[in-house]
Amino acid sequence: MTMVCNDPARFTEDMLVGFLDANARYVVGVPGGVVRAHKTRPGKVAVVIGGGSGHYPAFCGTVGPGFADGAVVGNVFTSPSAEEAASVARAAHSDAGVLLTTGNYAGDVMNFNLAVSQLRSEGIDARYFAVTDDVASAPRGQESKRRGIAGDFTVFKCAGAAAEEGLDLAGVVRVAEAANAATRTLGVAFDGCTLPGAAKPLFTVPPGQMGVGLGIHGEPGIAEEAMPTAAGLAATLVDGVLGDRPDTDERRIAVILNGLGRTKYEELFVLWGEVARRLRERGYDIVEPEVGELVTSLDMAGCSLTVMWLDDELERYWTAPADTPAYRKGVSALAAPSGEVRDPHEIGSDSATTDIADRADDEGREGGRVVLRALTAMADMLAGAETELGRIDAVAGDGDHGRGMVKGSAAARDAAGSAAEAGAGQGSVLTAAGKAWAAKAGGTSGVLWGALLTALGERLGDTGTPDATTVAAGIRAGYDALTQLGGAAPGDKTMLDALLPFVEALEHRAAEGDSWIQAWRIAADAATGGARSTAGMRPKVGRARPLAERSVGTPDAGATSLAMCAQTVADCFTYITQGDG
Amino acid sequence: MTMVCNDPARFTEDMLVGFLDANARYVVGVPGGVVRAHKTRPGKVAVVIGGGSGHYPAFCGTVGPGFADGAVVGNVFTSPSAEEAASVARAAHSDAGVLLTTGNYAGDVMNFNLAVSQLRSEGIDARYFAVTDDVASAPRGQESKRRGIAGDFTVFKCAGAAAEEGLDLAGVVRVAEAANAATRTLGVAFDGCTLPGAAKPLFTVPPGQMGVGLGIHGEPGIAEEAMPTAAGLAATLVDGVLGDRPDTDERRIAVILNGLGRTKYEELFVLWGEVARRLRERGYDIVEPEVGELVTSLDMAGCSLTVMWLDDELERYWTAPADTPAYRKGVSALAAPSGEVRDPHEIGSDSATTDIADRADDEGREGGRVVLRALTAMADMLAGAETELGRIDAVAGDGDHGRGMVKGSAAARDAAGSAAEAGAGQGSVLTAAGKAWAAKAGGTSGVLWGALLTALGERLGDTGTPDATTVAAGIRAGYDALTQLGGAAPGDKTMLDALLPFVEALEHRAAEGDSWIQAWRIAADAATGGARSTAGMRPKVGRARPLAERSVGTPDAGATSLAMCAQTVADCFTYITQGDG
Repeated sequence: MTMVCNDPARFTEDMLVGFLDANARYVVGVPGGVVRAHKTRPGKVAVVIGGGSGHYPAFCGTVGPGFADGAVVGNVFTSPSAEEAASVARAAHSDAGVLLTTGNYAGDVMNFNLAVSQLRSEGIDARYFAVTDDVASAPRGQESKRRGIAGDFTVFKCAGAAAEEGLDLAGVVRVAEAANAATRTLGVAFDGCTLPGAAKPLFTVPPGQMGVGLGIHGEPGIAEEAMPTAAGLAATLVDGVLGDRPDTDERRIAVILNGLGRTKYEELFVLWGEVARRLRERGYDIVEPEVGELVTSLDMAGCSLTVMWLDDELERYWTAPADTPAYRKGVSALAAPSGEVRDPHEIGSDSATTDIADRADDEGREGGRVVLRALTAMADMLAGAETELGRIDAVAGDGDHGRGMVKGSAAARDAAGSAAEAGAGQGSVLTAAGKAWAAKAGGTSGVLWGALLTALGERLGDTGTPDATTVAAGIRAGYDALTQLGGAAPGDKTMLDALLPFVEALEHRAAEGDSWIQAWRIAADAATGGARSTAGMRPKVGRARPLAERSVGTPDAGATSLAMCAQTVADCFTYITQGDG
Repeated sequence: MTMVCNDPARFTEDMLVGFLDANARYVVGVPGGVVRAHKTRPGKVAVVIGGGSGHYPAFCGTVGPGFADGAVVGNVFTSPSAEEAASVARAAHSDAGVLLTTGNYAGDVMNFNLAVSQLRSEGIDARYFAVTDDVASAPRGQESKRRGIAGDFTVFKCAGAAAEEGLDLAGVVRVAEAANAATRTLGVAFDGCTLPGAAKPLFTVPPGQMGVGLGIHGEPGIAEEAMPTAAGLAATLVDGVLGDRPDTDERRIAVILNGLGRTKYEELFVLWGEVARRLRERGYDIVEPEVGELVTSLDMAGCSLTVMWLDDELERYWTAPADTPAYRKGVSALAAPSGEVRDPHEIGSDSATTDIADRADDEGREGGRVVLRALTAMADMLAGAETELGRIDAVAGDGDHGRGMVKGSAAARDAAGSAAEAGAGQGSVLTAAGKAWAAKAGGTSGVLWGALLTALGERLGDTGTPDATTVAAGIRAGYDALTQLGGAAPGDKTMLDALLPFVEALEHRAAEGDSWIQAWRIAADAATGGARSTAGMRPKVGRARPLAERSVGTPDAGATSLAMCAQTVADCFTYITQGDG
């Protein structure tokens, strides 16, 4: 799925051209990779990181003050050559030596060691270090055989900060070793990635499965498991990493929850909530966690959890400022926030239903229970129709209609239930339902349905049993509220095109003397006809020339769901009547 | 492909829990969304942004000093409710009023306008503004009907910076309006995204096609086109955006090349190189461009180009510092770089082939041409075998073997061609080829093949025609170099398992008096047998318990390609001999 490229054989070179252009404030290109735009200051050890590309922001995205001095940039998933590594190291070197460091892969180890030999032969004090954080790639006791994955980031960060602080080469190497010894990562993959220009993915994970410990280039892992929930995944990752805890009693940890490319930020945050809770339950104190994409694998789906057990020195390097193209940390030039620190609140504190029972009489309370049954039937129906409504909406809208209707109708049902239980009449039950629908569903349909139910409720009141004329007047009030809110007119292919025939039929049958239950059945059919008439719609927002195959024959989702609700309520009334009769 | 979740119906709530936990330094939760961890200072306008979620870092990822004061967080791709918008605005408000701003979507417009009415009824000075940057969603002259997409970022950034600077509410609204009027975006999509818990994508784009102007929720676009090269895509985006240039002569522009989620950083940089060149050719001066993921659509594949034409005021706000969970800009606490600014170099300056012709005699030069033919045949063969070798390598390795061999053999052929043309003998041609292979291919195979060719070349020398014994001794020297470099032994299921039978057969046939061409043919068959023996391999790096179906019956890629090269060279020699005979 790596699709944007010119000549695949020149992908890395083309990538570097754009990277350097966009980040000219930070970096300049040299043969083999990139170095900081400012020369390394005398007395400072240069830290040169690297490996194959395809892992951005690793590795060139973290070249800058507080982090690396240079990055060697190999082809996608391929070690750079020894000559390239030596070239970047030479450019980054000032007078205090250079640490070259990569993840532990055979090609990197060979080429970077050859580069070190070459640099030493030129009189440059050079050292090499390979990161080995991936617990899945070799068992305990064979740590030195492990691959380097997202732990590259903690090790490179600490080594870079140590060099920035002024440690000599032996000191920077010691910090890299200590960071590596304290770092453990476990990764999972849900789907493979595609090399530039390739017709097929590099590897695949069977649908619904997860590869545990799969390497960032698709190398074999430990096991394949059924895709778990976020909670289950958090348990796998936390147990896997903590189960390989280094020999330390430290309770302060740096943590990275790293996305591999296609597993996006929202998913990572869902997972982080579960991971953080588990880590704290195990007694850990999480220091400045990173949740995002730090070491990717093109567009691979998956993620990894990295923990670095901190001592005072590692914590200082982990939290030190950095200023690089893709990773910036530390106080900015902004004035320190002058406002008072807030008390964190909980999300989503709901206001309770107020006492509205006194306004209702017995008939009104019976009406409230009828409304609750109708809203319950609607919520049930919509829960089953979510996917279909989403599909219809996706033709011309953003596909959120099904989800919104389910959320809204469920919230309306719950609020109606509380109100009815508190003894509210039909009007207050409807008003409570409308308010809850608007508040919980959001979106266009949420605010419109909220207004519709509220207007109807206000018209029906809490006493007596409304007749057909009153119900029709209530729906008419709702219709008026909608036209005012939404700014649409009949014929605009919106829910109004179902609602207008509905209210007109209701008014007509009421004038003819039908009961409201009879009138509602006929009006529901009119609404269904009105919804059908929205087929062949134009997109709500868009040019006059939409993509042809997306707009033919599909009715508007809002009109469709309104008609479906009208029918469901008609069925519910019929059932009630038959049950009563 | 949104896979990590618990209850899909609670995805946004779960996401917020993790987001707030990971970014507690920046934000706290309030009903309906998030606000900065520090209260808004007296006299400062609050800027509250928002819309549906699924677009991270938009919108909650940009709450912090220099940017937004709060973000209303709706469900995925769904407007938050009016109550939620009012709740966040109330929490963010200090005493100088609040600007609520979203992209121009019907649900957002309705709910946020209702929130503004509610806030005003409570005595809070509130305004609403909708961003309309998407040129694909309505034609010129109907700009107010356009959707808001990645231009949300430029408008919110400028409004946030203006509020930070101390402008009053009317002033902040004026800046938002000016930024919006100066901003144009065109987006393209290559593939759809999947809502949390959904079984199918929200929409799809046919393979090999690109939806031009497709909305960030999958709303219809302008046209569907065949997927272009990066250069073609850059032309489409630049032409589309500049073709809708606002009425201004400004030549300074802020630019965002925004990834939608699955189109990764490396691809965006490839594209940026093309985009930046075209913008400069059109006379534009690019100010602090952003290339990355700023307004995503879950894991949608695609990208968009945003241009904001700058005047002095907008440029000041665009370049102002900001410090938020996902976007940080401005000088950090790090000491200003003390080193000298480097002269930017060009990438990949190659050293020319040195004059090595004098060492060769006529026979050696003829040998150099034979080597060139053999290397050319190898490069041709490998170019055709790239995909298959990548596939084999992906079973136990990282799938880069085919690409590495193609790059290396092509570089070797080119270097050999230059050397042979310069009159070099077989030894120098091989040495030049080996050096080029290692330098250009990178990876494990690059350094090993480089060492093999170099060792062979050093043994063959540049004079006379080598006999079978000399060739065998040269390959043996290469074998020794490889064992020393790679640390592997025969039986470790590496290319040595093909190379050892090859050199042993070569030595044996040479001792028996065969010509080196005869000997090579037999040795190539031995190499092929050796390569086959690597099937059933264990992964090179990994646990003793690999994924079963990935490791059975597939030979090592390095051994396979070595045997294929040996066979190709044998065929080439046979052809030469027959041609000569």
